[in-house]
Amino acid sequence: MEKKLAVVALGGNALLRGDQLGTIDEQEQNTTETLENLIFLINEGYDLVITHGNGPQVGNILMRNDAGEQLYNIAQMPLDICVADSQGGIGYMIERMFKNVLNKHGINKNVICIVTEVLVDINDPAFSDPQKRVGKIYTREQAEELGSKKGWIFKEEVKTQGGYRRVVPSPVPLDVVNKSIIQDLARKGNIVIAAGGGGVPVYIDEKNDVRPAEAVIDKDLASSLLANLIGADEFYILTDVPYIYINYKKPDQEIKEFLNYSDTLKYLNDGQFAKGSMAPKIQACLNFIKQGGHKSVITEAFKLADKKYGSKITMEYEDDRR
Amino acid sequence: MEKKLAVVALGGNALLRGDQLGTIDEQEQNTTETLENLIFLINEGYDLVITHGNGPQVGNILMRNDAGEQLYNIAQMPLDICVADSQGGIGYMIERMFKNVLNKHGINKNVICIVTEVLVDINDPAFSDPQKRVGKIYTREQAEELGSKKGWIFKEEVKTQGGYRRVVPSPVPLDVVNKSIIQDLARKGNIVIAAGGGGVPVYIDEKNDVRPAEAVIDKDLASSLLANLIGADEFYILTDVPYIYINYKKPDQEIKEFLNYSDTLKYLNDGQFAKGSMAPKIQACLNFIKQGGHKSVITEAFKLADKKYGSKITMEYEDDRR
Repeated sequence: MEKKLAVVALGGNALLRGDQLGTIDEQEQNTTETLENLIFLINEGYDLVITHGNGPQVGNILMRNDAGEQLYNIAQMPLDICVADSQGGIGYMIERMFKNVLNKHGINKNVICIVTEVLVDINDPAFSDPQKRVGKIYTREQAEELGSKKGWIFKEEVKTQGGYRRVVPSPVPLDVVNKSIIQDLARKGNIVIAAGGGGVPVYIDEKNDVRPAEAVIDKDLASSLLANLIGADEFYILTDVPYIYINYKKPDQEIKEFLNYSDTLKYLNDGQFAKGSMAPKIQACLNFIKQGGHKSVITEAFKLADKKYGSKITMEYEDDRR
Repeated sequence: MEKKLAVVALGGNALLRGDQLGTIDEQEQNTTETLENLIFLINEGYDLVITHGNGPQVGNILMRNDAGEQLYNIAQMPLDICVADSQGGIGYMIERMFKNVLNKHGINKNVICIVTEVLVDINDPAFSDPQKRVGKIYTREQAEELGSKKGWIFKEEVKTQGGYRRVVPSPVPLDVVNKSIIQDLARKGNIVIAAGGGGVPVYIDEKNDVRPAEAVIDKDLASSLLANLIGADEFYILTDVPYIYINYKKPDQEIKEFLNYSDTLKYLNDGQFAKGSMAPKIQACLNFIKQGGHKSVITEAFKLADKKYGSKITMEYEDDRR
């Protein structure tokens, strides 16, 4: 029987916690702790593809681009190059830490990182309504200047300390470049790191050329798409909460450990999950199930191996005690 | 008969010319012109692995790291992460431009970029005698402060405008992580981009852990090592000169179009090739031949397809009119 294939999306505090400075030592430490939690999947015989977020890292890359232009007049790179940079740096770090974790457990497997483009449609409505905030906070004057100089679009930061932030489109991912190679490598027992940061967003223009899209793709949606495209059996999102909750942080908050597709969709449509945080994760899990995946799991990065934790979404209710 | 396998190292003005600002438009344009020159190799039936330098790009990344710390107090990343970042950004750019060049020529092939670690020996003498200049030029006071704060080592810039630059070791590359996967992907007809910037330098410590080496690896030496490890037939270095010369820029300058191993080695030992520029390229070519490669070629990036140009080094003299 063919081994099970799992796609595991590392996000949130899996790589860098919100209260940390972002040094490489912190990132390496968190990554190692997270990857330790994946060993049980390997021991249970799963083939693995790892995806990851890049929020704090690409945020820092964008800030450094701004600072480099200001201090040294170094040309800023567009968003696609910044995302690709972050795939290289984070992917390499995960690859190296995973190899060491495997080594500690006496497991001999290759770990390989693929720089990954993800296709979007340039006519996606997201391009006329950019919503995803990226990079640093500017004053109104700076935002106006950058807007006219670079064509960037800004929104006021109302919830936080004020000022203006650049917003970019977050289009729906449609396809993953080199998906067959990713699948093939994983099916040969290599641990493949791919689609980091939701992938480098590209689109096909009218001349059939691949062009960069100045956008970012939600990493959970890109990860679940990849999971479907490579025929994964299971899809894991590792984040900062151990479970899916309904009535989250209300007096009648309830843990949902076993969920089915239709109930979860109903909770999503009822607005049970926070827009921009839990909702896209739930959507990614539902997409995976709808396209034929067997099980989606959301749990805390450091608790995956502890089978007490984690919410599992399947097509029908299915309490399989993990 | 198995197809020929070639490793092509893109360097110098293949990606970014010295007189350019470094904008992404310039890089994309140069890259496209360079890749157009590789089409004839594909048409002649070669499997291809592409490697590339990262000098200007990682230089900019280091400057941005410095600027980001100064302006926004963002933690600087170590050199290994900066090299990995550059592999992601440059590799993605080459992948996308190559796909478009192939498309224009009606060739259907995957292009895939592998983030690549290259093994060095932490006891390499280079670690006690760092020579490779990286990053920005500092004043004496700044250099002293950074030296005591970060442990960086500096050398005075005597040839240029003065000041101090950080120097890092440039150890000998010993092995390429995931070489078998790179070989296998290339042998299936995929164009593989690997070992960018000489690879992310890592070493194996006494606990058998993979550790980052704060160093940079010469990209031509890493590329020729990779070429040997994957059993390449031919090794190409694309640079800023159309030929290998002896008595370069002297009245008796002579073009050497066809060279053999022993004569070239003699020229190298006679000091015919500039240290830090042509000499490591010649060494890389000789290493490739010595380890069983059939032909090393050095020529200008934009002239590869024009068979009038290029110097070819083989074990014995061999005028095959390429």
